[in-house]
Parts: sequence; structure tokens; C-alpha cells
Amino acid sequence: MKVVALAGGVGGAKLVAGLAKILPEDQLFIVVNTGDDFDYLNLKISPDLDTICYTLAGLANPETGWGQRDETWVTYDTVDRLGGPSWFKLGDRDLGTHLIRTQMLRQGKRLSEITRDFCQKWGVIHPVYPMSDDPIRTIVHTQTGEALGFQEYFVHQACQPAVKSFEFKGFETAKPIPAVLDGIRDADIIIFAPSNPWVSIDPILSVAGYRKEISKKPVLAISPIIGGKAVKGPAAKMYAELGFNPTAATIANHYQDLLSGFVLDNIDYLEKQKIERWRIIAFETNILMQDEQDRIRLAEEVIRFGEMILNRSY
Amino acid sequence: MKVVALAGGVGGAKLVAGLAKILPEDQLFIVVNTGDDFDYLNLKISPDLDTICYTLAGLANPETGWGQRDETWVTYDTVDRLGGPSWFKLGDRDLGTHLIRTQMLRQGKRLSEITRDFCQKWGVIHPVYPMSDDPIRTIVHTQTGEALGFQEYFVHQACQPAVKSFEFKGFETAKPIPAVLDGIRDADIIIFAPSNPWVSIDPILSVAGYRKEISKKPVLAISPIIGGKAVKGPAAKMYAELGFNPTAATIANHYQDLLSGFVLDNIDYLEKQKIERWRIIAFETNILMQDEQDRIRLAEEVIRFGEMILNRSY
Repeated sequence: MKVVALAGGVGGAKLVAGLAKILPEDQLFIVVNTGDDFDYLNLKISPDLDTICYTLAGLANPETGWGQRDETWVTYDTVDRLGGPSWFKLGDRDLGTHLIRTQMLRQGKRLSEITRDFCQKWGVIHPVYPMSDDPIRTIVHTQTGEALGFQEYFVHQACQPAVKSFEFKGFETAKPIPAVLDGIRDADIIIFAPSNPWVSIDPILSVAGYRKEISKKPVLAISPIIGGKAVKGPAAKMYAELGFNPTAATIANHYQDLLSGFVLDNIDYLEKQKIERWRIIAFETNILMQDEQDRIRLAEEVIRFGEMILNRSY
Repeated sequence: MKVVALAGGVGGAKLVAGLAKILPEDQLFIVVNTGDDFDYLNLKISPDLDTICYTLAGLANPETGWGQRDETWVTYDTVDRLGGPSWFKLGDRDLGTHLIRTQMLRQGKRLSEITRDFCQKWGVIHPVYPMSDDPIRTIVHTQTGEALGFQEYFVHQACQPAVKSFEFKGFETAKPIPAVLDGIRDADIIIFAPSNPWVSIDPILSVAGYRKEISKKPVLAISPIIGGKAVKGPAAKMYAELGFNPTAATIANHYQDLLSGFVLDNIDYLEKQKIERWRIIAFETNILMQDEQDRIRLAEEVIRFGEMILNRSY
């Protein structure tokens, strides 16, 4: 069974890492949100791509989910002491990634090429692609009328401003990556990892052609919300601010017309009936991934659920 | 007595640090070569400025003379592992300086402002100025017809190519810094630190107006060559390749029309007579600076020598 997984950062990375443990490299193709990418200290930073790749490479910091393990902060502290910006924490190891990516981008290399090159050096065998080689930037419009770059909202302002809407700046002109289109066309099933729908999965779906190709395939999504709370990040807060009840069913409804299956937590079993009314097959299990065993177990359950959906579909 | 010191990197920094120990901040004004500045990993690097400032701040690495003490190399190693350039060693602490300088330059700040800001944060009380806020780049033309940026020649190719000539690219259009011109006009004496004449002092003298103002003042130079050898760097090798005998007298001759006094090592006492024939007062002492005591002792001797020259001049 060939799988294409769409993912954002930490939550998505956990499931993708589980899938990578059980699927060979020709059966798992990973497409990552780059709407969070930004410039900081004149460096080109791709937070979700790095989180996914570091996690797959076994380099990720297990405490934070982002950044590298055994990280040091010498440059960060020096920058801070010189009065530089310090709201985005860049570790010394992590910084090496950004310096080289920035240099390669300035030399005219594509983000997808650079990511492939890094993955090779890090021993990541599964294909990992940015959603586009062209910039698409997630802008958070707040209820007070501000327009914030995603990291400005997410890290600098710690998700404090109430959101009004989202904009994916540049999506109209950003080109899809041919290999990603091929990957989707070639897939048996598409998996939306347990990432934020508004700012992780929707930006990917905004790229010309992806949504259309994905809509031809069975899609299953894993809820990033458990018991009305986001496992990590502002998804629940965003839904509440936008006037939705932040539940698993709300997530399923978000993707409604695309979904064949939806995986939610046992705790949310009461939502199941509602979701199935939308002709989405719901599957409940323990979806909280606290360690590697959880990731592999959930990945196995998701794949079995996918197989069941495929057998029903055809 | 008001002193303006012109300096390049390591050798110049040692004397300047000695002078800074014995002269208050309104009696020592330091002008630094920026012909070695270059872009590396998209960072704006000013090797001589940093060496001078780190040395004055007590942050310099005592082993190398360049870079910071207690340095770590985490980012450097990561860059190396990702296949990035590794010929120029950037420590984690040092990198903080370059990141902030690069950001401030891109924001439109002048190198002299940035240097003043850094000095304030580092506790450097004496004024330290780059020779210009505009780029002047020292190009080494080799005997095989290559044109190498200075760091490419100096670090990457380890001074191996034989030199034919030097070019200070951009000097025709680079503007002098008004504060430097004022400093020179205001000075009682100008000191050329024991730096490479070709690639440390000459670039400074190439800036419009400096040479003219300096020529109105008593100037004394300290030899960077002892017993036919450069204490550090390629000065002796350059002279030999250009067809000169690399001696203290050759250095004095290099600056001939500007010099009132010249400080050479005891070992080179035989050169003294030759130098004085050019109407330059020569003073011999131990000019090798191996520790802080040496720096202070030499600085004191240089200042006393300067006072003697001033008394003779007027």
C-alpha cells in the first residue's frame, strides 16, 4: 500500500516517524507544510521541514519535539548579549542547518533539492518534500486587525492574539512540485497527520493541483484534538476563537468533503456517531503518542484502518 | 599626547592592547583595516576589526590571536557535516558577532556604528573605527595570473600562491569616515602598528584623505619583521616574492616619505644606520610581544619614543 502523508511540525512528525518504521521507502511519501517558513537573522528557516527531518533522522530533541537533541546554545547566548533578537531559539547544531540551507537557496538551489541533500546526509531514506519550492507564507489575521507572520504569532506572541482568519500568501503563484503530484497520483491512500488543520494541512492543500489530486484518493485524517484540547499548539484555541467547538468532530468536519476515514481518541467516542453521519468512517483508539512504541502502534493501526477503507472503497 | 593607531589583525592588536592599557580613551584612537572583510556563508565577516575588538575586550583567544577564547565549534562541525564550506573556522561565539553584524548591515546601519555598539557591549572604551563604512576589498594578484580575495589567499590557500601585486578594490569610491579624519587631524602622533604594510596598513592609507592628513603629522611605525621573518603572516614571504629583501629596513623604506620614527628589534640593529640615512629616527628594542607584559612594555617604549620625536620635531 502506497501512502502519502501530509504533515506539519511536532504532532505530524511523531506519526510520520511511526509510519517510517513500518513502511519501506517506496511506500511512504511525506509532504511537509512550509507556510511557517520565515527569515530570522537573515537565515532561511523551515521549522516544520526540520522537525520532520530531525525526527526521522533520530536527531530531534525528545523534550521539545523541535530542534536537535544534545543541543548547545553558545551562538544564541552571544546574539542575545549583543542585543540581537532572541525570541526564536536557534541552537548551535540547528544553526548549521539554517546556514547551509540559506547559502544553497541563495545559490539558486530549490528547497526540495536541499531537503533531499540533507536527508541523504542525515540517513533519512523516505522521500520528504516541502509543499512547494516557491514561498507560501501563512499570515494570521487577528481580531484586533493585525496581520502576523506565523512564527511571529506562534513563537514571539506565544499564540496570545485571538485569530480572525488565515491567509496563505503566495499560494496563487506557488507552483506544485511535480514529484509531489506524482506521489499523490501514485498513492493508494492519503493520510493527514495529526497536525493543525488551519496552519499545517490547509497550506499544503492550497497549492495548485494538490487538493484536486487528493480528492481522487481515499483520505484519512488523525485528530490533533483529544478531549477538546490540542495535544500541542493552538488548534483548539483557534477553533474556539473562530466560533467552533474544538472537538474531534470539528476537525473531521473541517476536511469533510475530502475524508473517507477519521481516527479519533477513545475519549472522544461520543463524537463518532456525528462524524459517521457525514459518511466518514470513524475509528477510535489511543491517539496520544508519548513514546516511540505509541508512534509505531498508532501507525500500525492507521495503516490497518487504511487497508480496511481501501477494501470497502473498491 | 593624542595618538591615532593604524592596525591590521593579530600583531596590530597586541600593540593596540598595550597602548590601551597605558593611554586613556581620549588619547588613543584606533583605525582598523577592513580590506580583509568578506562574505562567508552569507555572513559579513570583518576579521581585523573583530581581532582588535576581541583583544581589547579581553575576549580574544590567546592561543590563536584571532577568534574568541573558550570557543566551541558545534555549528562549524554541523556545517562541515552537511557539506558546507569549512576552510574558514567560525566558532559558535564568533558566529554571534557575524550574525548580528550581518543583520545590522542589512538594516542599513553603518559598520562604524555597529562597531561602536559592539564595543559598548564588550566594554571597549577606546574608539575603534573601520577604515571606511564603504567596502574596500584587498585583492591578491598572483604570479600565475589569479586574482584572489584576501581570505581566499590567506586562509583557504594558506598564502601558498606567489604574489605579484595588490589591489584595493573600491578605494576610489570609498568615503573616509569623518570621525577618523577628525581623529587624525586632532592627533599629536600617528602609529603604524606592527602589521603587514601591503595588506593591513596600505589599505587604510588608500582611503581618500587619510594619507594626506597623516603626512602632516609625525608618524612612527613598528616593524612587523624580526630577523628577516614576519612574526605572523606572510609579510616576509610577500616582500621576497616582490623582489625585496624582507628586512626591517625594507619596512621602513616602504613607508619612507611618511615616517619620522621607526621601531625595530634589537636583533636588527645592523639595519639602523641604513634607516637613519632616510632621515627616519630608528629605535631598537625587543619588539616581540609574547605576553601582556611585553605589550605594555613595548607600548610604553613606543610612547616615550613618540614623545622624543615630538620634542625633536617642534
